[in-house]
Amino acid sequence: MIFAPATLVGSSGITVIRISGDETFSVLAKIFSKSAEEFEPIDADKLNSHTAQHGYIFHAGSLIDEAVVTIFRAPNSYTGEDVAEISAHGGSYIYRKISNLLRSSGCVHAEPGEFSKRAYLNGKMDLAQAEAVADLIKAKTDQANDLALKQLTGKFSGKIKSLREELINYCSLLELELDFSEEGIDLVSKDDLLVKIDKLIERFNNLTRTYERGKIILNGVNLAIIGKPNVGKSSIFNYFLNESRAIVSDIPGTTRDYLQEPLVMDGIQYNLIDTAGIRVTEDIVEKEGVRRSKLKIEESDLVLEVIDLTNPDPNADNNVKDVSREKVVKVYNKVDLAPGFKIPIDGISISAITGEGMDKLHKAINEKAAALTTGSETSDIIITNERHRDCLLKSCEYLSGAREQILSGGGNELISFEIRAAMDSISEIIGKTANVDILNNIFTKFCIGK
Amino acid sequence: MIFAPATLVGSSGITVIRISGDETFSVLAKIFSKSAEEFEPIDADKLNSHTAQHGYIFHAGSLIDEAVVTIFRAPNSYTGEDVAEISAHGGSYIYRKISNLLRSSGCVHAEPGEFSKRAYLNGKMDLAQAEAVADLIKAKTDQANDLALKQLTGKFSGKIKSLREELINYCSLLELELDFSEEGIDLVSKDDLLVKIDKLIERFNNLTRTYERGKIILNGVNLAIIGKPNVGKSSIFNYFLNESRAIVSDIPGTTRDYLQEPLVMDGIQYNLIDTAGIRVTEDIVEKEGVRRSKLKIEESDLVLEVIDLTNPDPNADNNVKDVSREKVVKVYNKVDLAPGFKIPIDGISISAITGEGMDKLHKAINEKAAALTTGSETSDIIITNERHRDCLLKSCEYLSGAREQILSGGGNELISFEIRAAMDSISEIIGKTANVDILNNIFTKFCIGK
Repeated sequence: MIFAPATLVGSSGITVIRISGDETFSVLAKIFSKSAEEFEPIDADKLNSHTAQHGYIFHAGSLIDEAVVTIFRAPNSYTGEDVAEISAHGGSYIYRKISNLLRSSGCVHAEPGEFSKRAYLNGKMDLAQAEAVADLIKAKTDQANDLALKQLTGKFSGKIKSLREELINYCSLLELELDFSEEGIDLVSKDDLLVKIDKLIERFNNLTRTYERGKIILNGVNLAIIGKPNVGKSSIFNYFLNESRAIVSDIPGTTRDYLQEPLVMDGIQYNLIDTAGIRVTEDIVEKEGVRRSKLKIEESDLVLEVIDLTNPDPNADNNVKDVSREKVVKVYNKVDLAPGFKIPIDGISISAITGEGMDKLHKAINEKAAALTTGSETSDIIITNERHRDCLLKSCEYLSGAREQILSGGGNELISFEIRAAMDSISEIIGKTANVDILNNIFTKFCIGK
Repeated sequence: MIFAPATLVGSSGITVIRISGDETFSVLAKIFSKSAEEFEPIDADKLNSHTAQHGYIFHAGSLIDEAVVTIFRAPNSYTGEDVAEISAHGGSYIYRKISNLLRSSGCVHAEPGEFSKRAYLNGKMDLAQAEAVADLIKAKTDQANDLALKQLTGKFSGKIKSLREELINYCSLLELELDFSEEGIDLVSKDDLLVKIDKLIERFNNLTRTYERGKIILNGVNLAIIGKPNVGKSSIFNYFLNESRAIVSDIPGTTRDYLQEPLVMDGIQYNLIDTAGIRVTEDIVEKEGVRRSKLKIEESDLVLEVIDLTNPDPNADNNVKDVSREKVVKVYNKVDLAPGFKIPIDGISISAITGEGMDKLHKAINEKAAALTTGSETSDIIITNERHRDCLLKSCEYLSGAREQILSGGGNELISFEIRAAMDSISEIIGKTANVDILNNIFTKFCIGK
């Protein structure tokens, strides 16, 4: 039997403590009483599923809280096991008391994601659906929420299942033909199969490509602010966050390690990164900062290239020479200090101090970011999970293997072997063939109590 | 209709959102569907009380979350009204979505304590019980928890009610006698009444005295660490907290404003206060610090008087000359630096650096604190609430008034008037006569969602 708080524990109206396992109701019978005066054990058999029971929690005869307990009988619960949810009063003290009581009654504290893992193992949801639970809780935008819900309610799994069915059909036909091989019956035209496999490879590749987009929707657009020292990167960073997160000074090289903060603008989630100014330096700390800045540019989905309008650097573009132009927004800062200066037309002129031009910049960033998250693929589902992408890539490789076998005149066994391997790979997405390591890897990323 | 999260909102398995009011179930019917595919309104009339319903939350046709909703029909709910508790997935994004949905459906966000206020107004609990809810959530020790539970389950209110009954009886008799005054019937012996009122005054006084203890149990022992600059007050403070909370240096006067941190030792709750060293100084900031230190000494329940063993101050005791000796624990610090020094026997010698003697100090403090929270009163209930204490004091004044009236031969009307006022005052404790200001004052101190 496991238990954990399903809510955060702190100064709140209630804390919900979830218990799951075979002995849930017999444990409950030992600690829950309808009377506050003295402990009168409830009859565990009379607790109907999906009912809320008002009563009192006792520990060795002493009242420790008044509570409502909601009953979910197996298999009609989140985990598929007997589940009780104790809604106790809020506060960490009471939680600790009940937690100690449950431990002494034979419950163990659940690992992160253990309730969802049990739900998966008991067939209440497939693996992709379980992963969606964590994504849903993490979601910060409409798009991320929609994708997680599609995955949670099984739309995504349905698509994967239909692809899997298709592969199973091909295998069956190939293997059936094998049985009749002595009679020389041709059930599958190799030319037709080749066309079908080519189409599947294309579909898989399309799906795989949606990952770039899905990753950004789920985790946010990595937006790095880069440029020479003292061009005002940290001021822009602070302006967007609407707080003095980064230390700002006139001294070039003030920011030495990069800073990263989440930000939602116009329904798009960003990870805003303030980098160290890029210059040749002998200072060891600054040198490391510059190295990290360059790494951050590589990892970014968008780059804000900042140039000091009052002191433009003719070689500024060198810093982004390896970055595709679609990813770069060029910004001329300190327009407030440069009333007489000629403003170049290849960028947006702003002042992070007065706010001039910031609306325009904001709009330019959002347009580029929206392009990153809408994409032109025809697929109606989007891959948000690296594991799913990898399964699809692996599946594609096996399909290519099958293709090679057909072209080189390989036997049905060999073609079928490759297709079966392709099928196993995509089955891993929904967990039909997942092993213990994969499961542990997935569920330990969950929060406690889910 | 009101709503609020009953749990903290953040990265957790679930968030529980509570809705209360007449229209609760018709609002629910507009947003809750049994099908995830498309919105199919539920039949609100078929939602039985104390049942948990699994389904999906929709906003204008779009799915926003999967949820379990628990139904409590009036009057069998916390507030006494129709109540629904939505257990949605955790995360602040989903909470915001559902919160917006509820607002657009005509619900307003509840004020702190508004659910409990409604429970009180609808007769689900009296005022002292409602106050106990907040105390229970705040409780940090067994003692505080026990007192709050006694109050919540009505034991405390029962005692107040029986005192109230007694006063009502006296009034009735006095007023009845008044009706028969022309016949000269003597229903109440004034001598007997005087004895009874004296006894009541004594009981009320005993109860009032328990407040000193109750306050400490509920809010913790205020323990101030005081002494000359540089005797090691902040080091002792940090030692108890087991972290470097206060900045420590060799420079006298490092701590200039007092620091305060909660601490639970051996089941007793403390508010540990590190004060500025007391000395005559011209530094304006330090001067203010010294003034505050002296205030803190006055407000403390216990004082740790710290003396530097290597540099003892003959006038150290002057700082605590107005403090009763039971409240003071005398400590000689820096025993590690004073191997050859003679150790005085009127205190405990310790080293906050090596930890030497800290166990002994710990024990001495706990003994004094335990004495503060156990007390010698015969009363089996303890007042933890300033408002209750004030009601009792006021009631006592009226009883003294009644006593004066009897002694000076006042008429039954006058005696009865005073007793009735005394009765009203203690009725305020359980809320029979509470006015709007009192209610607002009580419930705004609650957390949101309770």
